[in-house]
Amino acid sequence: MKAAIIMGSDSDWPILEAAEKTLRDFGIETEVTVASAHRTPKAVEVFAAGARERGVEVIIAAAGAAAHLGGVIAAYTTLPVIGIPINATPLGGLDALFSFVQMPGGVPVATMAINGAKNAALFAVEILAVKYPDLIDKLAAYRKTMADEVKAKGEKLKKLRSRAGQE
Amino acid sequence: MKAAIIMGSDSDWPILEAAEKTLRDFGIETEVTVASAHRTPKAVEVFAAGARERGVEVIIAAAGAAAHLGGVIAAYTTLPVIGIPINATPLGGLDALFSFVQMPGGVPVATMAINGAKNAALFAVEILAVKYPDLIDKLAAYRKTMADEVKAKGEKLKKLRSRAGQE
Amino acid sequence: MKAAIIMGSDSDWPILEAAEKTLRDFGIETEVTVASAHRTPKAVEVFAAGARERGVEVIIAAAGAAAHLGGVIAAYTTLPVIGIPINATPLGGLDALFSFVQMPGGVPVATMAINGAKNAALFAVEILAVKYPDLIDKLAAYRKTMADEVKAKGEKLKKLRSRAGQE
Amino acid sequence: MKAAIIMGSDSDWPILEAAEKTLRDFGIETEVTVASAHRTPKAVEVFAAGARERGVEVIIAAAGAAAHLGGVIAAYTTLPVIGIPINATPLGGLDALFSFVQMPGGVPVATMAINGAKNAALFAVEILAVKYPDLIDKLAAYRKTMADEVKAKGEKLKKLRSRAGQE
Amino acid sequence: MKAAIIMGSDSDWPILEAAEKTLRDFGIETEVTVASAHRTPKAVEVFAAGARERGVEVIIAAAGAAAHLGGVIAAYTTLPVIGIPINATPLGGLDALFSFVQMPGGVPVATMAINGAKNAALFAVEILAVKYPDLIDKLAAYRKTMADEVKAKGEKLKKLRSRAGQE
Amino acid sequence: MKAAIIMGSDSDWPILEAAEKTLRDFGIETEVTVASAHRTPKAVEVFAAGARERGVEVIIAAAGAAAHLGGVIAAYTTLPVIGIPINATPLGGLDALFSFVQMPGGVPVATMAINGAKNAALFAVEILAVKYPDLIDKLAAYRKTMADEVKAKGEKLKKLRSRAGQE
Amino acid sequence: MKAAIIMGSDSDWPILEAAEKTLRDFGIETEVTVASAHRTPKAVEVFAAGARERGVEVIIAAAGAAAHLGGVIAAYTTLPVIGIPINATPLGGLDALFSFVQMPGGVPVATMAINGAKNAALFAVEILAVKYPDLIDKLAAYRKTMADEVKAKGEKLKKLRSRAGQE
Amino acid sequence: MKAAIIMGSDSDWPILEAAEKTLRDFGIETEVTVASAHRTPKAVEVFAAGARERGVEVIIAAAGAAAHLGGVIAAYTTLPVIGIPINATPLGGLDALFSFVQMPGGVPVATMAINGAKNAALFAVEILAVKYPDLIDKLAAYRKTMADEVKAKGEKLKKLRSRAGQE
Repeated sequence: MKAAIIMGSDSDWPILEAAEKTLRDFGIETEVTVASAHRTPKAVEVFAAGARERGVEVIIAAAGAAAHLGGVIAAYTTLPVIGIPINATPLGGLDALFSFVQMPGGVPVATMAINGAKNAALFAVEILAVKYPDLIDKLAAYRKTMADEVKAKGEKLKKLRSRAGQE
Repeated sequence: MKAAIIMGSDSDWPILEAAEKTLRDFGIETEVTVASAHRTPKAVEVFAAGARERGVEVIIAAAGAAAHLGGVIAAYTTLPVIGIPINATPLGGLDALFSFVQMPGGVPVATMAINGAKNAALFAVEILAVKYPDLIDKLAAYRKTMADEVKAKGEKLKKLRSRAGQE
Repeated sequence: MKAAIIMGSDSDWPILEAAEKTLRDFGIETEVTVASAHRTPKAVEVFAAGARERGVEVIIAAAGAAAHLGGVIAAYTTLPVIGIPINATPLGGLDALFSFVQMPGGVPVATMAINGAKNAALFAVEILAVKYPDLIDKLAAYRKTMADEVKAKGEKLKKLRSRAGQE
Repeated sequence: MKAAIIMGSDSDWPILEAAEKTLRDFGIETEVTVASAHRTPKAVEVFAAGARERGVEVIIAAAGAAAHLGGVIAAYTTLPVIGIPINATPLGGLDALFSFVQMPGGVPVATMAINGAKNAALFAVEILAVKYPDLIDKLAAYRKTMADEVKAKGEKLKKLRSRAGQE
Repeated sequence: MKAAIIMGSDSDWPILEAAEKTLRDFGIETEVTVASAHRTPKAVEVFAAGARERGVEVIIAAAGAAAHLGGVIAAYTTLPVIGIPINATPLGGLDALFSFVQMPGGVPVATMAINGAKNAALFAVEILAVKYPDLIDKLAAYRKTMADEVKAKGEKLKKLRSRAGQE
Repeated sequence: MKAAIIMGSDSDWPILEAAEKTLRDFGIETEVTVASAHRTPKAVEVFAAGARERGVEVIIAAAGAAAHLGGVIAAYTTLPVIGIPINATPLGGLDALFSFVQMPGGVPVATMAINGAKNAALFAVEILAVKYPDLIDKLAAYRKTMADEVKAKGEKLKKLRSRAGQE
Repeated sequence: MKAAIIMGSDSDWPILEAAEKTLRDFGIETEVTVASAHRTPKAVEVFAAGARERGVEVIIAAAGAAAHLGGVIAAYTTLPVIGIPINATPLGGLDALFSFVQMPGGVPVATMAINGAKNAALFAVEILAVKYPDLIDKLAAYRKTMADEVKAKGEKLKKLRSRAGQE
Repeated sequence: MKAAIIMGSDSDWPILEAAEKTLRDFGIETEVTVASAHRTPKAVEVFAAGARERGVEVIIAAAGAAAHLGGVIAAYTTLPVIGIPINATPLGGLDALFSFVQMPGGVPVATMAINGAKNAALFAVEILAVKYPDLIDKLAAYRKTMADEVKAKGEKLKKLRSRAGQE
């Protein structure tokens, strides 16, 4: 099982670390690449065109501003490409969101929320789970943990309020 | 190979037909369901919770306005959910886009362009191709046909202009 | 008289405290719950489906991003659901606002301003006042106090300016 | 049981008819008024200030553009005010939506979707159902009918596709 | 010569001080009032309806969020009303801008930039200059000073760059 | 009493006719000019710089897209300039609105709603009424007529509904 | 003198014809190409990388939706690239505008208005005029004609109004 | 080789310094001017009308808010004008972007990203390179350096992760 994370700029790494960590938690090997659709287009092309051959099964691409990275990669591979629009300009990430999500017919990029690195990784896991059934149980466990956390937070708030005599 | 298409309202069908047709062209069996996250929530839950058991491997969900369908389905399954925001209100589909794409951390929905039915299907195929390698060649052929069409259109335009003495 | 406040994440509590305090000031018993439409969907369903039976007469739901909480609750109860879109992403709460307010026909969610916790509580009081006439006088008194505060602030500003020799 | 519908302009009536019809279907007496916050402010004030005395229990206010009607009415009554932003300018109703929903703290207006007349009526019914329990069953029946319609549409689509040999 | 400044909340004063100072610089007497279209509607009505009689010749109204203050005042007077949308919510003042500027036909509010207090005052001066010709020269002098400042800043930048050997 | 209407393109005239007619109804002499800030900048400068001398007392400027006309005129005169953003591009007039209303400090343009020609004229009348008290009564009469029309429309709707047995 | 026009889809041609015609009017030889950044990425790369060698001196790129064409071309050439965002989705061209204009630092694309084909051509002429001084006079003549047209339209409107007894 | 940078306010200089530095790095002489389309319109006209005669070959104009500077300059010269919308108001630069980019047909302004000073300079270099072929190699070298930096950052990240035992 192998995923690739590619980002337009290393300044996106603090946001993307969550994606990498999540993939690792699911036991998925991850390539991490810095390459820019505009500054190193050939590197992006080589990255994308050779990804399947390198054993990559799903690609996560993150970029801000006029974020063409996802579309350019998708143009050179038929591997599933998941896009993370990065909030990197005064437009609050809306520019990157539109640049990722509004792909014209024929070449899809599956877009996550602005700065949505964790969900990109989880979606990659869901894709891999189609092939690797072991991941299905791991996903179920992850969901369970998440639900337990929400419940624990609810309990904590209840106690807080109860101590304050509010309930 | 089995996909599911679910829509919040049968009025979305004229847009979604392109998704169904594309899946069929790739030889993928497709369930088509009308169910609303708000009007028939239980039906949506049953649809989502039982999808994997019914053999569904990837889900395409389409809805307009405050489009909660994708998120509700994703909450009840760990199958990959692909969202199509439908342009159904005076806000030009921006409401549906935000409702699909801005999913909070933990439960992803992979979002396509507004009304992007064909790309939803193609992304579903790309996901299935991770497991079913036969689809890889079909995707390559699809891309080839698409590229040829673009070239043909370019040639046609060239002739048109040449006849008009413009080139 | 009983209201319920439900939030998608305990990180919303600092904003929602104002709602809880306002309800308390009006003598309305308040259930407070943390539950996520996506991470604990079943808990949300149980919360909503049983609310009327638990004596809840009005529900306040708060969530950010692709905020489906209000819609999902409204799908499982015919109690009035008041939504508070939370500003929780780089889009300034516009994503949550659209996700709450643009509910399709059939299942309404009454939406307040972004982060508008106090107004959500006041609107809950106005709803309860339809049934409990005692609240009508309390609402009038609240409005009176509010008006007095505005006037006091105006007086204070007048004095400030007068001392500065500006009036 | 009595509701009031007020609109800023009689040109909004084609949209509001759905609200009036829905209220009638639930057996709720409905006052219908045309009055403008800007052109007939005194009439609006009189309408609002006297509404409770006239037996009105919930108010639905609809307006487009810089839609101040909801806020002005809410300023003169503590009855619950439900707002319908009308799409009446080139901004697609976003101006009216913001003018309704972003009410500052202290005086709430419960806002529905742009042009969301039916939901405004249904929310009025949900409010009245807090006091008049008979409406609870009617709301349940309404939801049931709605769900049946969704199911019927799904069946119809299934037949259509089956006849076309697609399923 | 008399102007009035009215604001929905005293928290707007830090922005409005620039308007008051500008009016004072032009020798225009200025009433300053805090009153809210929603919290003290009657006070606003009294303010507006009696303004002409009190000798006020132009009104500046500032408010944030669903900013109805300008429209409500304009409804009760035919004095020119100048609106200042205040940036007071996560929407960056766009809500207040739309609430001011999109006034429906019949009752105008002349809208300035978001937080544009100085320009509101200058526009008030331009209006008064139609009647009081003495202000015309003062406006010309003001423009001259402003132009000189721009030129001085240009010179300063030139020196800075020259010292840095850049020119 | 003299006003000037200037538009960036004669294609704006169908919208501006309402402004001209309104001014005429109030007995105000009106200059009408077509001149573009970009295509005939000198003509605009001459128009603006000489306006006061020609007896013009208030200027209405209308333009679409990157609508610089208002700002350019305001730069060359201290007469009050009223701006009408025209809906002339796929952005629904938002581009023109921002180009008019967001004037930086020092040079105000009083902005009306998108396509708000009638209000521009009424605001011009309100400005002139500061100097020419005769207009005050005319404005009052205009408001009265407008109010009567709203009431008449309300009556008409009432009759319509009554005949349909709805009231 | 040679320019190139490239479009993502031949459906953009009706808008781009104005660019081609304008270039022809200025005597500039023009290559016209249909190629898609996503469907025929290699063709775009070849187009861009070889453009300077083919004698092309300036490139006009037009695309809608997530419009990556301009950025991809700019990545493969240092020729000036002028972008035309096409209005091709329910977002009114805002998606294409952001995708063109928000290019990250290092690789510029000079963006025109949505659907702004004529201006793209005129800007190409202005660029070429830096090298070919003959074009300077042609540009001046073009501006002159344009100004004359504005004046003629103004005259025509004057006559129209004069005949109607309005001036 | 000579470029001009003009800004509406000296407060824009911290952003524009990057443009000036980039031009200097390419050996291009640069005029720097502070002048406002609204506060010093005549200075802007003189600047623009005389630019070609002063030897200027390309103009970079930066302004925020209702940014008319680019359009006004373009109206007085046929030199290529490159616009930089400055983020100077609560609207995140969207007002300045629309004011620059949506120029009506006939008078183009080539618009860069919000605050995109470096790209404005690079585009100016690309324009000058049409005439001065020496710049072509410099641009290629600049691109090479940029690509090397991206690669170096990628290597650095790889080492970082490797040291952390992540790869």
